[in-house]
Amino acid sequence: MPHITVDARMPGIFGLFNYRPETAKPLLEFCEALLRDENSLSRGERELIAGHVSNLNASPFCANGHFAIAAAQLNNGEAIVDGVRSRSTDTAISPKMKALLDIATKVTADGKTVEDSDVAKAREAGAAERDVHDAVLIAAAFAMFNRYVDGLNAVVPEDPNFYRSMAAGLISQGYVAGVHSKTERQPS
Amino acid sequence: MPHITVDARMPGIFGLFNYRPETAKPLLEFCEALLRDENSLSRGERELIAGHVSNLNASPFCANGHFAIAAAQLNNGEAIVDGVRSRSTDTAISPKMKALLDIATKVTADGKTVEDSDVAKAREAGAAERDVHDAVLIAAAFAMFNRYVDGLNAVVPEDPNFYRSMAAGLISQGYVAGVHSKTERQPS
Repeated sequence: MPHITVDARMPGIFGLFNYRPETAKPLLEFCEALLRDENSLSRGERELIAGHVSNLNASPFCANGHFAIAAAQLNNGEAIVDGVRSRSTDTAISPKMKALLDIATKVTADGKTVEDSDVAKAREAGAAERDVHDAVLIAAAFAMFNRYVDGLNAVVPEDPNFYRSMAAGLISQGYVAGVHSKTERQPS
Repeated sequence: MPHITVDARMPGIFGLFNYRPETAKPLLEFCEALLRDENSLSRGERELIAGHVSNLNASPFCANGHFAIAAAQLNNGEAIVDGVRSRSTDTAISPKMKALLDIATKVTADGKTVEDSDVAKAREAGAAERDVHDAVLIAAAFAMFNRYVDGLNAVVPEDPNFYRSMAAGLISQGYVAGVHSKTERQPS
């Protein structure tokens, strides 16, 4: 049961966003800018980093959600997500994505563990400087979202269809509109 | 040296915000809503939580900055900040603030460690439900900001006057205007 009184029809972070719309609004605009706006990393690649970090943090609401969004947007997405989720070393991702996921792994533990050589490896594999910036910021952002959901003990649905349906809605509508439509109170 | 090319005149998170204004804008609006807008926790109390979490994460740019903002806004602020920074057990803070800082300590490690009894203790000490929400979200937010600064190896000034001057600017102008004025490029 959540540590605060949220609308029981809104699991996970949706109930928290609805509880405190003043902070939800900029957080959702941040997600839209970071995960969906025009970028040299595809939407699927950015969501894969978000799912990976949430999986490392053992935060299943965000891991299931963002892995579902990644799987739906990457070519061969289900297999890639399965590989990253199980931390398999032979997942079919580019050396660039592997290096960015490695940086995200370090940021998740402690940002100070990222070394010049980690960044050099990503750059040599074709990452632009801004890709490195964005990988670090996505990893940092999910250090936040995971702790927000877990620290308030938000409800975590177990049905995989919940996450597939959520992913479809967020992919078609984006974070700002997609979440607002979920947190709009229904007439009771 | 930072892992990305930032303006050398902008230390810490200011250089990062200037590097990527698209994500900086909603992040600064988030800070304004969370740390400065009307609230049952004072601005000084919220900044004290931000400084405490950054100190636990050994992230000196954010710890020095937010402790300086807290010290300037709390009665007897310097002594309270010194006590919280050194984790002294006889710091002159209210049982409510002590319970909220204890929740923030747990969120910093792992949100899942927050127990019903931690929340009950805060409520019994007079915390509103929204105070609990905000303490968790502030702790979560600084899990992000600390990793953002540390993961990109941003420059950390050593001079305490830098942080006092930064605090004075942010207290008088707020996060959105105060940071934008710092990240505006000067004619060279």
